[in-house]
Amino acid sequence: MRTINIGMVGLGTVGGATYSILQGQKKRLESRIGAGLEVRKVADKRPETRAKFDVPRTVFTTDAQDVLDDERIDIVVELIGGLEPARSFMMKALESGKTVVTANKEVLARSGAELVALARRNGVGLYFEASVCAGVPLLRGIHQGLAGNNISEIYGIVNGTTNYILSKMSLEGMEFSEALSKATKMGYAEADPSYDIDGLDAAHKIAILASIAFGKWVTVDMVFKEGIRHVAQRDIGYARELGYAIKLLAIGKKTAKGLEVRVHPTLIPKDHLLASVIDIYNAVFVNTDCAGPTVFYGTGAGGPSAASAVVADILDASRSILSNSRMGFESGLGIEATNDVVDIGSLVTKYYIRLRVIDRPGALASIAGVFGQEKISLASVRQTEERKKVVDLVFMTHEALESNVRKALARIADLEVVKEVSSCMRVEDRI
Amino acid sequence: MRTINIGMVGLGTVGGATYSILQGQKKRLESRIGAGLEVRKVADKRPETRAKFDVPRTVFTTDAQDVLDDERIDIVVELIGGLEPARSFMMKALESGKTVVTANKEVLARSGAELVALARRNGVGLYFEASVCAGVPLLRGIHQGLAGNNISEIYGIVNGTTNYILSKMSLEGMEFSEALSKATKMGYAEADPSYDIDGLDAAHKIAILASIAFGKWVTVDMVFKEGIRHVAQRDIGYARELGYAIKLLAIGKKTAKGLEVRVHPTLIPKDHLLASVIDIYNAVFVNTDCAGPTVFYGTGAGGPSAASAVVADILDASRSILSNSRMGFESGLGIEATNDVVDIGSLVTKYYIRLRVIDRPGALASIAGVFGQEKISLASVRQTEERKKVVDLVFMTHEALESNVRKALARIADLEVVKEVSSCMRVEDRI
Repeated sequence: MRTINIGMVGLGTVGGATYSILQGQKKRLESRIGAGLEVRKVADKRPETRAKFDVPRTVFTTDAQDVLDDERIDIVVELIGGLEPARSFMMKALESGKTVVTANKEVLARSGAELVALARRNGVGLYFEASVCAGVPLLRGIHQGLAGNNISEIYGIVNGTTNYILSKMSLEGMEFSEALSKATKMGYAEADPSYDIDGLDAAHKIAILASIAFGKWVTVDMVFKEGIRHVAQRDIGYARELGYAIKLLAIGKKTAKGLEVRVHPTLIPKDHLLASVIDIYNAVFVNTDCAGPTVFYGTGAGGPSAASAVVADILDASRSILSNSRMGFESGLGIEATNDVVDIGSLVTKYYIRLRVIDRPGALASIAGVFGQEKISLASVRQTEERKKVVDLVFMTHEALESNVRKALARIADLEVVKEVSSCMRVEDRI
Repeated sequence: MRTINIGMVGLGTVGGATYSILQGQKKRLESRIGAGLEVRKVADKRPETRAKFDVPRTVFTTDAQDVLDDERIDIVVELIGGLEPARSFMMKALESGKTVVTANKEVLARSGAELVALARRNGVGLYFEASVCAGVPLLRGIHQGLAGNNISEIYGIVNGTTNYILSKMSLEGMEFSEALSKATKMGYAEADPSYDIDGLDAAHKIAILASIAFGKWVTVDMVFKEGIRHVAQRDIGYARELGYAIKLLAIGKKTAKGLEVRVHPTLIPKDHLLASVIDIYNAVFVNTDCAGPTVFYGTGAGGPSAASAVVADILDASRSILSNSRMGFESGLGIEATNDVVDIGSLVTKYYIRLRVIDRPGALASIAGVFGQEKISLASVRQTEERKKVVDLVFMTHEALESNVRKALARIADLEVVKEVSSCMRVEDRI
């Protein structure tokens, strides 16, 4: 029986879970591919990780180069994370004729096209299911399962931390800061939470999703992003009264003007399926021409979940190697970069806007006047009922051009009656 | 450039949609596989279908045998549906060394094991993504995407017609018969709706799903099934008051006693994600050890949706053929039949029970007495408040053995105070 030889780099949470599945489920996994599966080398620069996952001394190394140098190794599993040295390492692996399986969203969202090109040039596979929403079989689902479709739109809740925070705000009435503390206490948020809450994590994921769905490579720097720090409890409340839930959505859309790729807190109809995705869960809504709307839902994070995707990739990679074929994400994916991502200023959508305004006659008229001059037509206005000196004014606009909205809000911020432009969030109600 | 040659049998709704995609998207699909894709033969015994889908005269035939006899053909796409002659046709195709793509749930749910064995023996592929939930990339997701996991449970809303009916009953207060008429009017229910509403369609689908998830073949006759004819508007109302929604669920579970495979109206917590799947939509909830709970959601029916799955299968089959490998559902799936499906009588779950009872002193005591004697402990009892001669008594039990529940209900039906045992539905609240 032929054996597929695996070399792993990075023995952290995901690496450890992957190693455990490969050892614990060895027989079952081998029967799935009709061949042996052997982990020949595991590299981690922290020698103490070896004992933690019970890796034999003959297999463990602190030098990743040992994995590249081992000629028996067919598949290199990169689970270090971060841009470098992971990217250089993967490139070397592909160049030396090894198939690469990775969970690395940073590298894919920046250098996916180069990696695919390199894999093709060297006749080897490239697999990265775990890079987006961990164990949810999402990239495969889009790449293979929906291959017959033209995909027009993707709306994803792809970051568990922010979804947890927004869920706590929505269901338990917490303010952002309190919900963030709770997320930190639960281990869902990092000590420095900005990667999650400012939308950077989601931006990486939508770059990869959009690349696979639309067939050209989008890099993370092309993604417009806005996080959830400024979402207030009262926004959640007003949105609810208007029939909406607030979610941090990662959006990719093919439009006549070009590609929209953006991450921001978004008002969606509160009876939409995505609105009922709460807690740390992820869900990605994909709109297609034939299969209709399709949703993939799951945990989306954590060692075992990511390891599930890594193992699925290893099995597919093994079957490709055994049959001397190329069936990975590298096949059927283009290597061209997208050049038609549209600027956020030319977005046309509805907006939710909340202002803090001095409650005096003529205040609304002066604000509404600016909206009118900037060609923004209003669908509704709501004023908090309390008789206070400063009140909330909440506007829902009809469809408007983002650059006009920005101009209007800059002018409105300067009005004497306006204390603050507190919120401006995009609305997606044809989702 | 090598060309993959396709022969189609059956030019109905799904066949027509598939043919249209293969023609309309030819260039894009060919670029996905790096080879040509040609439909060489299309067979349908109704000659009038040819013109409808604009099939060239040289390609169209009324004799399916022509497809088998054409030696150029690599992939046979079977879209006749129904057990025979589809099954014999597929077997002949596999025997003659052709890969088979099918949407046929009847054949798969009865003879899946034989077809897989035949495909393996002849070194060809077998693909049937469209047989369950049409375009939702579900079988692939389970078979490949979740391959690293042990799957413990599946809960599926896999029949659009019944989900539409239950949604109308739940959201618009309709009775079953009215909702069924509406479904018929909308084209969601057949003239003879029993295949859908009595649970037979769902039984086929859970047989296939369970086979793929648990690795041994379950046939449709092993599936316990109960439809939704007897679900009344008042059941929906009482369930809601108790915190539940009623859905027709197709359930597969690996338990210590064996495999549970069953279809029946089920009470699920009303805030569960599956409860928010309404209208004709389908969703399948898969519980796994590593990836956690994973849900696949989509249209699940209709020509274009099924065609989307058929085309995905054709692309994967083409890539396998081009690389001379076997990567279809036939690989990694067992050919053994399951022998450990447990009888419904040994099910242990909670039950919702509604009785029509004459409102007289001692009535409840005599009923509760029977439950107690049959070892069924009650979680709650509710009586309709109106002062009428005959009232509803609604019970929720703690976990109980189904055979005990049946014995108890048979005895209760014989009590003088009991006019009718109106409903008994299973509850899944640890979903």
